[in-house]
Amino acid sequence: MAARYRMVRALSERLSEPLEIEDYVVQSMADVSPTKWHLAHTSWFFETFVLEKGLPGYRGNPHYAFLFNSYYNTVGPMHCRPKRGFISRPTVKETYLYRAQTDDRMMQFFETVTDRQWQEFEPIIELGLHHEQQHQELLLMDIKHVFAQNPIYPVYRQRREREETRTSPLHWIDFPEGVYTMGNDGTEFCFDNEKPRHRVFLEPFQLASRLITNGEYLAFMEDGGYERPELWLSLGWLHLNEQNWNAPLYWEKPDGDWHAFTLSGLRRINPAEPVCHISYFEADAFARWAQVRLPTEAEWEAASATAPLIGNFVEHELYHPAPSTKIPSHQLTQMFGDLWEWTSSSYAPYPNYDPPTGALGEYNGKFMCNQYVLRGGCCATSQMHIRRTYRNFFAPDKRWPFSGIRLAKGMS
Amino acid sequence: MAARYRMVRALSERLSEPLEIEDYVVQSMADVSPTKWHLAHTSWFFETFVLEKGLPGYRGNPHYAFLFNSYYNTVGPMHCRPKRGFISRPTVKETYLYRAQTDDRMMQFFETVTDRQWQEFEPIIELGLHHEQQHQELLLMDIKHVFAQNPIYPVYRQRREREETRTSPLHWIDFPEGVYTMGNDGTEFCFDNEKPRHRVFLEPFQLASRLITNGEYLAFMEDGGYERPELWLSLGWLHLNEQNWNAPLYWEKPDGDWHAFTLSGLRRINPAEPVCHISYFEADAFARWAQVRLPTEAEWEAASATAPLIGNFVEHELYHPAPSTKIPSHQLTQMFGDLWEWTSSSYAPYPNYDPPTGALGEYNGKFMCNQYVLRGGCCATSQMHIRRTYRNFFAPDKRWPFSGIRLAKGMS
Amino acid sequence: MAARYRMVRALSERLSEPLEIEDYVVQSMADVSPTKWHLAHTSWFFETFVLEKGLPGYRGNPHYAFLFNSYYNTVGPMHCRPKRGFISRPTVKETYLYRAQTDDRMMQFFETVTDRQWQEFEPIIELGLHHEQQHQELLLMDIKHVFAQNPIYPVYRQRREREETRTSPLHWIDFPEGVYTMGNDGTEFCFDNEKPRHRVFLEPFQLASRLITNGEYLAFMEDGGYERPELWLSLGWLHLNEQNWNAPLYWEKPDGDWHAFTLSGLRRINPAEPVCHISYFEADAFARWAQVRLPTEAEWEAASATAPLIGNFVEHELYHPAPSTKIPSHQLTQMFGDLWEWTSSSYAPYPNYDPPTGALGEYNGKFMCNQYVLRGGCCATSQMHIRRTYRNFFAPDKRWPFSGIRLAKGMS
Amino acid sequence: MAARYRMVRALSERLSEPLEIEDYVVQSMADVSPTKWHLAHTSWFFETFVLEKGLPGYRGNPHYAFLFNSYYNTVGPMHCRPKRGFISRPTVKETYLYRAQTDDRMMQFFETVTDRQWQEFEPIIELGLHHEQQHQELLLMDIKHVFAQNPIYPVYRQRREREETRTSPLHWIDFPEGVYTMGNDGTEFCFDNEKPRHRVFLEPFQLASRLITNGEYLAFMEDGGYERPELWLSLGWLHLNEQNWNAPLYWEKPDGDWHAFTLSGLRRINPAEPVCHISYFEADAFARWAQVRLPTEAEWEAASATAPLIGNFVEHELYHPAPSTKIPSHQLTQMFGDLWEWTSSSYAPYPNYDPPTGALGEYNGKFMCNQYVLRGGCCATSQMHIRRTYRNFFAPDKRWPFSGIRLAKGMS
Repeated sequence: MAARYRMVRALSERLSEPLEIEDYVVQSMADVSPTKWHLAHTSWFFETFVLEKGLPGYRGNPHYAFLFNSYYNTVGPMHCRPKRGFISRPTVKETYLYRAQTDDRMMQFFETVTDRQWQEFEPIIELGLHHEQQHQELLLMDIKHVFAQNPIYPVYRQRREREETRTSPLHWIDFPEGVYTMGNDGTEFCFDNEKPRHRVFLEPFQLASRLITNGEYLAFMEDGGYERPELWLSLGWLHLNEQNWNAPLYWEKPDGDWHAFTLSGLRRINPAEPVCHISYFEADAFARWAQVRLPTEAEWEAASATAPLIGNFVEHELYHPAPSTKIPSHQLTQMFGDLWEWTSSSYAPYPNYDPPTGALGEYNGKFMCNQYVLRGGCCATSQMHIRRTYRNFFAPDKRWPFSGIRLAKGMS
Repeated sequence: MAARYRMVRALSERLSEPLEIEDYVVQSMADVSPTKWHLAHTSWFFETFVLEKGLPGYRGNPHYAFLFNSYYNTVGPMHCRPKRGFISRPTVKETYLYRAQTDDRMMQFFETVTDRQWQEFEPIIELGLHHEQQHQELLLMDIKHVFAQNPIYPVYRQRREREETRTSPLHWIDFPEGVYTMGNDGTEFCFDNEKPRHRVFLEPFQLASRLITNGEYLAFMEDGGYERPELWLSLGWLHLNEQNWNAPLYWEKPDGDWHAFTLSGLRRINPAEPVCHISYFEADAFARWAQVRLPTEAEWEAASATAPLIGNFVEHELYHPAPSTKIPSHQLTQMFGDLWEWTSSSYAPYPNYDPPTGALGEYNGKFMCNQYVLRGGCCATSQMHIRRTYRNFFAPDKRWPFSGIRLAKGMS
Repeated sequence: MAARYRMVRALSERLSEPLEIEDYVVQSMADVSPTKWHLAHTSWFFETFVLEKGLPGYRGNPHYAFLFNSYYNTVGPMHCRPKRGFISRPTVKETYLYRAQTDDRMMQFFETVTDRQWQEFEPIIELGLHHEQQHQELLLMDIKHVFAQNPIYPVYRQRREREETRTSPLHWIDFPEGVYTMGNDGTEFCFDNEKPRHRVFLEPFQLASRLITNGEYLAFMEDGGYERPELWLSLGWLHLNEQNWNAPLYWEKPDGDWHAFTLSGLRRINPAEPVCHISYFEADAFARWAQVRLPTEAEWEAASATAPLIGNFVEHELYHPAPSTKIPSHQLTQMFGDLWEWTSSSYAPYPNYDPPTGALGEYNGKFMCNQYVLRGGCCATSQMHIRRTYRNFFAPDKRWPFSGIRLAKGMS
Repeated sequence: MAARYRMVRALSERLSEPLEIEDYVVQSMADVSPTKWHLAHTSWFFETFVLEKGLPGYRGNPHYAFLFNSYYNTVGPMHCRPKRGFISRPTVKETYLYRAQTDDRMMQFFETVTDRQWQEFEPIIELGLHHEQQHQELLLMDIKHVFAQNPIYPVYRQRREREETRTSPLHWIDFPEGVYTMGNDGTEFCFDNEKPRHRVFLEPFQLASRLITNGEYLAFMEDGGYERPELWLSLGWLHLNEQNWNAPLYWEKPDGDWHAFTLSGLRRINPAEPVCHISYFEADAFARWAQVRLPTEAEWEAASATAPLIGNFVEHELYHPAPSTKIPSHQLTQMFGDLWEWTSSSYAPYPNYDPPTGALGEYNGKFMCNQYVLRGGCCATSQMHIRRTYRNFFAPDKRWPFSGIRLAKGMS
């Protein structure tokens, strides 16, 4: 576990390596946190839930307890989220020092922990590592948003490889009706929101064999996709008009051609790549335009049983989705990695959902309202972080996740 | 059908009788529409979807087409919803004239309609009558909100009868696991969102035998219900703080004791009555405090099969929920009438949902986002309007519907 | 005095005669008050400052004291201004009854007042009558704004007379440098803000002989007036962009030609009429475009000594400015009536300004911030209400007063 | 001039020395700019108005032209002010490089400039230096605001000297009525808004001999200063309530005693020090409470002729106002340095004000609306930057300048 702790923690720092000190400070919208904050908050998590409880005599810095608590009311008061970008101190150097000190004490904890303590703290440390992996993905999402505000278009990672311009054709894969079992049985680590395992009845359905591409999305745009209210949910149409949406997030037309800002800078749209940074509203409108629909999360999970858990994850260091180039005889591709896939399912507790008591009960349950479930992980997710039962969730107007479109339809 | 048309239309006018002309004009928040607008919009519905298409030579007033279109983008542009209270003309008298003229032409339509036309228009007129019944309920909700803004506390309906101060005890009714069929088979009228009939699997559950009372809700309040973040959804806690919620809507403490504004004026809280004007956030927090949960809409519909479709509806002219006084041997009460019951289900399309094409496809489907389903009707609903499969829906922060709490729990 | 009281009070009711009951209720923006509110508030003024203090045993309605107090913190708490349009009761009929009862008791007061009381209350009654005249003008401004929101364009007053299409040429009138005396000496009634009389030094200046016309303003518009930031104050440019100003308030182009909504309905722009419903920002930008400036209020008042106190006032029942048709040999016209004239002077206290103690000290002084002075009265002002020393004031973004442009320039 | 250029430019960098890189990036409210932005913008000024016009072949970076233009519409489009804190690049190092390169080219310009060019550019360079001095003061105001957001309370400058706890008594100094001459005659450098010199008539008045102290302000607070609407301008009362003002900016009560955050950290209030970070609204309310008033700017300028141009300026490196300890026999103290003094004068053009044409005409004139004039400089102002005729200005709700209270009264 100590080895895995070191490995996971190290990735946070490796992902920050391309950044200048100034980049660590900025919060470009309330949803975004400064890199510096992510690095500190993930340390605060171990400090608060492990060291302060399990390491005799340990006392954290009360300023950090206030600044780096995200939303755990049970733990104490916290700094106001939209003001995270106003906090220049601790500096980046001090933040790394905080991480190093936390890691030292964690190593001390690993060495001195009793068996009885281990029973209590092992699941919390496991949770802390998955928590850190979530923030690694957020760190990439957030720094992309920060860089995108800057007309200088900073580059996070140079990219020179030739691009794939072909993609496999879209097939429909059939799944029969029946009572399926979904959710996690808890033999491996999972978040509380994936439990308990339970039964659902599914009418027969079909799932698209791959993600929707930029080329397909451009056809929607050229067919008036952003100008036709009949294609949109009422709330989506409201958002579109208030925020003047006319393309996915990060798309612009500097010279008459569509480009998108990526972590490798501004690049011309590649029609073969999956369309990315799509809100639920846009995914839903695209599906309606295509006269099909999005899958439910139960359908997605049932179907995913047939797909191998491999894909374009953060370990590939592409930080961008890639075209599906498999030519399968009716097999699902891109189910894992590349892009999170919007489902039509509102984020809700499973039957007999039982969150832990205390602060860690605030981890998931209190967000189960007005958010939609996404499945499968993305190019900014750690491969060892994802599961078939994994439930990600965002409000339907959010576009800064690495999110895309998988279509479904009924069979009537 | 003509007779039923006349009867339904007459109720809109009867419900408006207690009002002064000035009352018809006011819009007290964006959700509320002026009474005058409800009376005109329901006429516009028949004019637009029946008369303009089915009565040769009929031409509506283009100003009215703009002012009284609610949200049908397919039909044409419309007046901005939050500004409905800025429109003093047409006057109330002119609005009634508009109704009378519409009714005259509808009668002419009924007399002259051909069999072939009837096939097309009968379902639309049926829909128009149910639409009008929905607006009758909105009219009562809205005028209550308007009156509640006024320190003079206008009375809609005098009420002198003695109040029931007892209520039946709360029992838990069991329902077994299994594949249930839900949704409407379409042999009677129903909205498109109730179809198609489909199968769901339910884990075993229990439903409370009656609604939660004011007395029970007061116990939640006295136990710090509105001050303890751990009881609330994150969004709910945000709303509570932004809007300084510390009690249900319309509750106040003029003299140290809790009172509530009702359509019969300001009245002392009756602990035996069902608690009313509750948001989803409050219903959910109450359930969490009580260590149970809200039912899903599938659970509610499955359970409702065992309850008679009777209750305290608008025809009772109480315009307020009443205590449950049945002493049943484990039988559901108050499932219909009294108060809409929040379910934990986000408003979503049923599998293979198929909205009509054209403007009437905007009736339901485009609202299926960030809203929660309520079931069972209330004291402002017409008895002939409700069904076991009826799906009402509101955003989780809304409190001006006649909404209450029915609890559920799993059996593990 | 009793006769004058009756006459002034009667005008408020006469100005309301063209209205339907529904029109009395609407508040179309926070600055606007419902007609019903104006009629009640002016009665509340006499009730609060005369009857409750001077008529033994008189007790006002506490609900009305709350609803119809405008901004007198010293008197007690008050209803929230932007919610005046939510109050349907008292009805219009009850409001007129309130006025009649107030008038009855005022007549009783006039009959029974002692000489000693008269010394105290005569100035307050005088103030109350001028206060009522201010609200008569507001009533017209406000109902125009209410009607303008309605696509039906209600007509307040039919107008059939032929329009004057000529206007006199614009001359520049010279005024020499020197120490001028300004402000009111208090031998006639005036508001506290017009006192005391004091000395100012003016450098030599010129004043335009008449108001700027629609024709001249159209030349500014056609020369890119609303698209050139260099013509605008920084705050004005901000407002223009936030609110999409591209013409004066109430101007629209229904069919390619500019029209303006007036109290006589939508009318084609008459180039000879003074341009109306102009903000300070627009007046200032026009002046900068014309390479001149607006006058200070001291300049305006000094110059006004040479102009007769006559003009197009509310008594003319035109409710709209009219072209200047005098062909004077260098004489000021339109200084009084037609339109309030923006000065470049921020509304500030005169040296040794001494507001009354108590509630009536809130009448003027507390508004002396971020407002600009206008002079001369308008077509909605009573002739007997205006004075050479009269100081009207509005925030620089307001456009719903009957406001226009008089130019000035220095002589260097 | 080259020597002075180097000296002024060097101070900007010296003032930034105590900062960490992270501190340079933050924008804590829309009024504040990041330190990094100030350093770049002042270079952009020389680049745009001198080098691009006067140095053959010079081409600036177009990204910088966009990012570091503040408000010169005439020069071109600019980055949105409230988003300056979203821009992490150029880095601090690159910003210093930009400064160094600009300085190199300016040195080249100084060496190669022709006499004819010098006539054109000398006034612009002079303006650029005064512009840089204005931003040096803003830099200190802004970094104080940034640090104040941080619960860690970063210290800009350690301070150990003993504090003066005595202050001289407040006397009233008389000034007679008469025609005074005000404004700058242009023989020295001044901003366009200080010209032309012109005549004003002043009624007799008195000015307080020193600034108001914390002790005197605490008496106002303890007498209900922040709870009594009758003391406040209407707009001020609105602001106070919306923003929950109950003390000057940066004051807090960590342990029951009032402290203020300063550039030397959180310090207990010293009653002898001038009260600081006061809005116009608070200054005006304090004066009303004291039954006197604020001076006009004409009064202040007339009176200032009797005071020596010395004081506590940025060169003293205190960055905080100090008690007045002179015991003068009726002589003005603290007129220069320590704190900017609010006048009751709205910022307006002097008679025959004539701004330059082109972009530099945007420097002052377009801000002459809804702002109030402050006089005398402060502890963050360069001594060589201030003049008796200098007009500073802020909107009446601003509290982050180093602003204080000088009282005046009439003599009647």
